[in-house]
Amino acid sequence: MTEFNNTIDKNLMSSQNRGLQERLFHLRNNKLFELFVIVVIVFSALMIGAKTYDMPVWVLQLMAVLDWAVTLIFLFEISVRYIGEPNKKYFFTKFWNVFDTLIVVVSLIPVDNSELAIIGRLVRIFRVLRMISIIPELRILLNSLVKALPQLSYVMLLMFIIFYIYAAVGSTFFSHINPDLWGDISISLLTLFRVMTFEDWTDVMYETMEVYPLSWAYYLTFIFFTAFAFLNMVIGIVVNVLEEERALARIELGEDNNEPSMQDLQRQLDEIKHLLQARQ
Amino acid sequence: MTEFNNTIDKNLMSSQNRGLQERLFHLRNNKLFELFVIVVIVFSALMIGAKTYDMPVWVLQLMAVLDWAVTLIFLFEISVRYIGEPNKKYFFTKFWNVFDTLIVVVSLIPVDNSELAIIGRLVRIFRVLRMISIIPELRILLNSLVKALPQLSYVMLLMFIIFYIYAAVGSTFFSHINPDLWGDISISLLTLFRVMTFEDWTDVMYETMEVYPLSWAYYLTFIFFTAFAFLNMVIGIVVNVLEEERALARIELGEDNNEPSMQDLQRQLDEIKHLLQARQ
Amino acid sequence: MTEFNNTIDKNLMSSQNRGLQERLFHLRNNKLFELFVIVVIVFSALMIGAKTYDMPVWVLQLMAVLDWAVTLIFLFEISVRYIGEPNKKYFFTKFWNVFDTLIVVVSLIPVDNSELAIIGRLVRIFRVLRMISIIPELRILLNSLVKALPQLSYVMLLMFIIFYIYAAVGSTFFSHINPDLWGDISISLLTLFRVMTFEDWTDVMYETMEVYPLSWAYYLTFIFFTAFAFLNMVIGIVVNVLEEERALARIELGEDNNEPSMQDLQRQLDEIKHLLQARQ
Amino acid sequence: MTEFNNTIDKNLMSSQNRGLQERLFHLRNNKLFELFVIVVIVFSALMIGAKTYDMPVWVLQLMAVLDWAVTLIFLFEISVRYIGEPNKKYFFTKFWNVFDTLIVVVSLIPVDNSELAIIGRLVRIFRVLRMISIIPELRILLNSLVKALPQLSYVMLLMFIIFYIYAAVGSTFFSHINPDLWGDISISLLTLFRVMTFEDWTDVMYETMEVYPLSWAYYLTFIFFTAFAFLNMVIGIVVNVLEEERALARIELGEDNNEPSMQDLQRQLDEIKHLLQARQ
Repeated sequence: MTEFNNTIDKNLMSSQNRGLQERLFHLRNNKLFELFVIVVIVFSALMIGAKTYDMPVWVLQLMAVLDWAVTLIFLFEISVRYIGEPNKKYFFTKFWNVFDTLIVVVSLIPVDNSELAIIGRLVRIFRVLRMISIIPELRILLNSLVKALPQLSYVMLLMFIIFYIYAAVGSTFFSHINPDLWGDISISLLTLFRVMTFEDWTDVMYETMEVYPLSWAYYLTFIFFTAFAFLNMVIGIVVNVLEEERALARIELGEDNNEPSMQDLQRQLDEIKHLLQARQ
Repeated sequence: MTEFNNTIDKNLMSSQNRGLQERLFHLRNNKLFELFVIVVIVFSALMIGAKTYDMPVWVLQLMAVLDWAVTLIFLFEISVRYIGEPNKKYFFTKFWNVFDTLIVVVSLIPVDNSELAIIGRLVRIFRVLRMISIIPELRILLNSLVKALPQLSYVMLLMFIIFYIYAAVGSTFFSHINPDLWGDISISLLTLFRVMTFEDWTDVMYETMEVYPLSWAYYLTFIFFTAFAFLNMVIGIVVNVLEEERALARIELGEDNNEPSMQDLQRQLDEIKHLLQARQ
Repeated sequence: MTEFNNTIDKNLMSSQNRGLQERLFHLRNNKLFELFVIVVIVFSALMIGAKTYDMPVWVLQLMAVLDWAVTLIFLFEISVRYIGEPNKKYFFTKFWNVFDTLIVVVSLIPVDNSELAIIGRLVRIFRVLRMISIIPELRILLNSLVKALPQLSYVMLLMFIIFYIYAAVGSTFFSHINPDLWGDISISLLTLFRVMTFEDWTDVMYETMEVYPLSWAYYLTFIFFTAFAFLNMVIGIVVNVLEEERALARIELGEDNNEPSMQDLQRQLDEIKHLLQARQ
Repeated sequence: MTEFNNTIDKNLMSSQNRGLQERLFHLRNNKLFELFVIVVIVFSALMIGAKTYDMPVWVLQLMAVLDWAVTLIFLFEISVRYIGEPNKKYFFTKFWNVFDTLIVVVSLIPVDNSELAIIGRLVRIFRVLRMISIIPELRILLNSLVKALPQLSYVMLLMFIIFYIYAAVGSTFFSHINPDLWGDISISLLTLFRVMTFEDWTDVMYETMEVYPLSWAYYLTFIFFTAFAFLNMVIGIVVNVLEEERALARIELGEDNNEPSMQDLQRQLDEIKHLLQARQ
């Protein structure tokens, strides 16, 4: 009897669940629900901004309450999305679902002692990134940015080799001139990045030119090489984007194309020739 | 009788008005009149520039008179354009007509007390913008710039999210190091904009690196992300412009095209086949 | 008799001249002669550079002699080009011929007193520009740059209007804060150009923000507008260049093209139809 | 007998050599061997970086041993590549083979006295460049960069002429104002490069404007000319790259193309016409 009852219970629950899943699936795809979540994210972002100002105590207390409300709404929203998902296994294969869940779960941990408090604050700041997970256009944009990276990996490797060699040379020759700028290879890499952004690079140069008068060649060749590699990178991206656009344009053209192709014309000419030859 | 007279009067006035409207319409489209208005705008711009220098009193008095003359000419010109407009309702639907009218009307308010004087001076400066409203090429240029903005809205939103998150992190960790740069989120946003323009960004970085030695990662990732987003924005604009050019080129090609299309050739081949088949 | 002699003399001279003109025309087009002139220009450029170092007296005296030698060679070369030119009137219609002649003529004026000495030195420096007049590739490059300018005139006018309005506003509000930067409209224009190049622009901003805390909006909108206009200018140039390339490609394609056009095919199909119809 | 023996020996050696050559040729093309060499290069690069930090004596001694191990591995690898090469003469015609051999040979020289020590350290740093010689993608990237240079030579010559003229004018007029910036033509060239990178260029300008109030024109025209020439250079590279892409696309299209050309169609039409005319 108990077994029988259990089966019935399970079936009942299962059908109830299915009803719940479908209802939540519809709720998840509701435009108004999406807008509400966006408003909550914006509100949470504004709270983060507001916290950086000096506030009276009662406002801080109110904000602590509102912060919990935001966390609970996010928990509710992520639950809706999880339960509403027809294929549960599929849910955690998507990066943004994992990201959202992590942000919400870490937000739930109560933060009292100072060390975790920092993590708590950081997680609350990273909630603003949920904007990207909720707005499809931003997600597409970021995906296309991430996709462009591997194509540029060799240019970036080349650039890193240039940086590394110059940093090694720099810390070999200039470390005794100014250890704050050329002390070891990692400091030298930072100094070279500074030179690449043209940020007070002449101050760096004039200092070493007092000891090595020809060291201007070091800086000028470095600027030349990195500018050249950087230019190449930018052109690489532009060419990639233009080619993707062209490929898309060709596909669109192919779909809309009702124009007969050259091959269609040739087929017709062949038919005409056969007609003529048949009569001879 | 009075009614009859009134009707006559109205008709007379109406025909007089119509004559006046047509004459002013022609005046408005007169190239010489347009040139005269441009000269007056340039003259008004030069006066604005001259006022920033120290001048003897009599020159200032002369300029006050000339300023009224410019205002009256502008009032005359805007009246000509309004009365010359055949469709009065249409007049205020155009942004530049509204802009011109506002500039002229606000110029008419006599400025004596110091507070309104500032508004008076600003309005006189913004008169230079009338250059854009009078030269069609500049109006077209600005329209195309304004049109490009919404297409870039998502990249700009993404950029703002990056800025906001970094500003929140910055004011959380660095506010006690230098409140002038990281005091609250709005100051941090300004500081980050400064870092993006590479303006003395190493001074900002070295200061925080003394407390957090790893904070260089904060600046480098920020520069990397914003540069990447900015690059994406620029490429977006370039691709948009090139596509518009191509679309225009295709339209022009289509209009000038006397070349028979593939479909025309196929139609002819079909006719030939029918001729051949008919005879069999 | 004297008249007769004169005619003979003239004919003789004329035929001699023609012979001289032809010989000089060949000399002018001689690659070795051109190379020699380029070497002299490079030598004259090196002398200009050498003069900026401290030199012993005898070197200076030697250089004065060599300078006269260079001037005489240039005089000889320009004479060769003028006499070698078959159509004398055509000679001075070309900008670079006039430029070369001017440079050489002004070099001939003896420079003793200090005021003319400066002009003499400047003219000797501008001799380096003769490099452009002698190397055709550089001349073509510069011509294409000059040709690109008028197409960009409206963008540059728009940019100047933006600059002028911001400079007028700046010198109105900020002149009492720092007259060195905002004293009058021309100084303000220079300061704004500095802000556009991001050169210590935050120093300028922080100074005015102490009086007007919201003045950051002035700088940020200015940077936004000029960056946008500048971007537009760059894109304008790129699109122009790409279109010229495409136009050139189309012309080359047209010239090399032995492919029959669609119209050729249609003409043939018409002929076939007529053949078929004629037989019916 | 000895002669006979010698011949046998030579043949034996020759066949042994051929066997060795083939085995080393396979080893050279082995992916695992290539990966091992890359790992050794990365390890050698890390050692170079580590040397810039302060290290205990035993680590330095260990590193000296490891450095010799790296040198020997490189010697072994270059020997494998040389002996594995079927055509020995071809080996040294490739730039990267010569470069690798030089780097390895110079590494073998024992460095004791201070002067050679510097060369030894530099050569060890340049070993990182072996990364480019071992990874084909980087080699291709660098080749395409080097190929782009000659096409830009005229733009770079034009830019140098602009720099030279401005440097000559600058050291003529400004050398007495600040000899550190305008002392002679080479210092002036460096100062102008600094102005081009917008690095504290207003400090340079304000200094000369105190003596020559109109000298802002010197800087602004210089910035304008160099920016224009630079822009031209960038556009030149972009157009080159896009054209190469298009040329490649056309070749690919041509190879894949099974579409009949217009000429094929015309040939068929001619055949049809002949068929029709033959029957008349």
